[in-house]
Amino acid sequence: MIAIHAGAGYHSESKSDVYKSICKQACLLAIEAIKCGKNAVDCVTIAVKCLEDTPNTNAGIGSNLTMDGTVECDASVMDGLSLQFGAVGCVQGFQNPVEAARLLVEKQKQGNLSLGRIPPSILVGNRAEKWILENDPHINTSCNLITDESKRMFLKYKRRLELHEERVNNKRRKIRQNKDKQDEDEEIGVTDEEDSIQSLIQDTVGAIAMDTSGNLAAAVSSGGIALKQPGRLGPAATYGSGCWAYNWSSDSKPGVAIATSGSGEHLMKTLFSKECASCIQNMDSGSLGLSFAFKDHFLESEFLKHLDCKFGGAIALRQDKYDNKQSVELIWGHTTDSMCIGFMSLSDKKPKVFLSRLPPQSIPGKSLTMEGRQIYK
Amino acid sequence: MIAIHAGAGYHSESKSDVYKSICKQACLLAIEAIKCGKNAVDCVTIAVKCLEDTPNTNAGIGSNLTMDGTVECDASVMDGLSLQFGAVGCVQGFQNPVEAARLLVEKQKQGNLSLGRIPPSILVGNRAEKWILENDPHINTSCNLITDESKRMFLKYKRRLELHEERVNNKRRKIRQNKDKQDEDEEIGVTDEEDSIQSLIQDTVGAIAMDTSGNLAAAVSSGGIALKQPGRLGPAATYGSGCWAYNWSSDSKPGVAIATSGSGEHLMKTLFSKECASCIQNMDSGSLGLSFAFKDHFLESEFLKHLDCKFGGAIALRQDKYDNKQSVELIWGHTTDSMCIGFMSLSDKKPKVFLSRLPPQSIPGKSLTMEGRQIYK
Repeated sequence: MIAIHAGAGYHSESKSDVYKSICKQACLLAIEAIKCGKNAVDCVTIAVKCLEDTPNTNAGIGSNLTMDGTVECDASVMDGLSLQFGAVGCVQGFQNPVEAARLLVEKQKQGNLSLGRIPPSILVGNRAEKWILENDPHINTSCNLITDESKRMFLKYKRRLELHEERVNNKRRKIRQNKDKQDEDEEIGVTDEEDSIQSLIQDTVGAIAMDTSGNLAAAVSSGGIALKQPGRLGPAATYGSGCWAYNWSSDSKPGVAIATSGSGEHLMKTLFSKECASCIQNMDSGSLGLSFAFKDHFLESEFLKHLDCKFGGAIALRQDKYDNKQSVELIWGHTTDSMCIGFMSLSDKKPKVFLSRLPPQSIPGKSLTMEGRQIYK
Repeated sequence: MIAIHAGAGYHSESKSDVYKSICKQACLLAIEAIKCGKNAVDCVTIAVKCLEDTPNTNAGIGSNLTMDGTVECDASVMDGLSLQFGAVGCVQGFQNPVEAARLLVEKQKQGNLSLGRIPPSILVGNRAEKWILENDPHINTSCNLITDESKRMFLKYKRRLELHEERVNNKRRKIRQNKDKQDEDEEIGVTDEEDSIQSLIQDTVGAIAMDTSGNLAAAVSSGGIALKQPGRLGPAATYGSGCWAYNWSSDSKPGVAIATSGSGEHLMKTLFSKECASCIQNMDSGSLGLSFAFKDHFLESEFLKHLDCKFGGAIALRQDKYDNKQSVELIWGHTTDSMCIGFMSLSDKKPKVFLSRLPPQSIPGKSLTMEGRQIYK
């Protein structure tokens, strides 16, 4: 089976059909690959590539622009069978960074390099770009990743930032005319809630898959936060934050696959994909585990205690085996306004795609919505 | 108090006085800072800067060279009070990358940027270099990080690599004359144990500190593995792998500070500094916790199950408080041949510095040595 998400964040009602159609296409491509006997790593890569190829997600084409007006992408893949993890971070000019992350997984599976040198797991920046060009002859470099829409949003945010800073400076000047510098900072405040661009952002896309041999994999890809500092590494390139996959093991530990999304630093500081995996593996069901992870290790996390709002989302799969049978549970949850999700198993005629939304009156960043589905039993 | 390490790896007997004198100097500088009332974050930064400044460690000046003959440094700092973590990865041209990591911690402590933008935690590559130059006017960029010794080792390893590859190619050619391609790879083998450069490497340096207010901090810095792939991000720039710090909290969770060292990918795949912290906090003593972390989460880790040898080291501090008293336990351990360690508390007249070695007959990468000391009670 395959499950994907096109980002946790804010999705307007008017565009919901577009998002759903993207999710549908990604599910269909991945399930076709599973049918052809491709392994879980290939399937999540195919699904995420599809999400990178569309201009409507914050990954590959259409990624958010950095403060400098450039596109810098992060992506990672984890293989539940070998437990290898590969990631590229802050790379420019590639339509499908997830392909490079997959290649790093494959290279690590081949064992040490000559003279016992350990193959790299994470490659970043312009030196990573050189490695990709040398090692992946099929990688697509010909595409313009900046779309009219991402450019328009960049200019809008940038203008808003300028206006905000102008306002702060004016206020500061007025205060200075009357008072000491000492009182100044307190009165201005650091952020302007009304202007916040945080709530407008859709983040990281991802996929989790189980292939016909029962192997699990997960992948995520992201253009990062809008107006990000160039060189800023996000959770999609960080081990234990963006994706996680772990095959069912004979010591009866359940298998898990996770792909997260949301505000990058919140996911990184909580090592959120790893925590989701631990909770799901150590509790009686996937839904109990994921809900515990969101409540105890995210909304109530001691690592985010200084924050008022915490934005995150995750899709997860738990696989149990007993007496030659297996059960697979799919669960998703988010504290963001919305999250676009799709899933499909081999027995389904068509994918299920939908926009999950927080219930009315709940507050994004403070409330959680969660749902689950038993896929096989 | 301060504790530092100048890397886990292999340290020759002939140079042991040099290493010890470096550790001594770092301890003295840091303890002087503690006496002057500097906080824990400043103290670990001062200690690590001292280790970066010497040409005899794999950090700052004297760092290992990449495959391209360049120096790319990783460094990170974690503050136990705010739980903020800052890291720079794969940056070229800075003598003290740990200063930039500290700056990222400070910026995050100031809260969100305008319009609710979240300040970055990890910055990498050439875009990070630009940020450092713009944000840290005191950063030292004038120094040549390549020493005669690091250049000599680079040329030696590189030559050994060429000879090894020549030998493999010759062998391949001979086999090809007799057999099918199919059998070829098996016969050649991937690594050549005799040639391995892995065992010759000293890795990441680090420091942990407790200031006079009882706050904890940790920092690490590294030039990365010798002949590394340019752009390869190591554990010193990865959250949960290189350093960890967590103040004692009122819900009676012990305080911990950790700085690790060793083979980067082994520390990263096991999220080793985070695991050490969890084990130390959840068990009855620091030594029990660290030994459990090394055995269960490193030597026996499911994430390293494909590896024969696992190279790691750590220094750790556990702080307990009860009835207005506190006890502080310092623990260190390594699976590498040796690890150079120093520590000093305010009540000591001089630092204790020594080269910890695996007992005779034990096998590096498979055996563990561990020791501890009660510092305050």
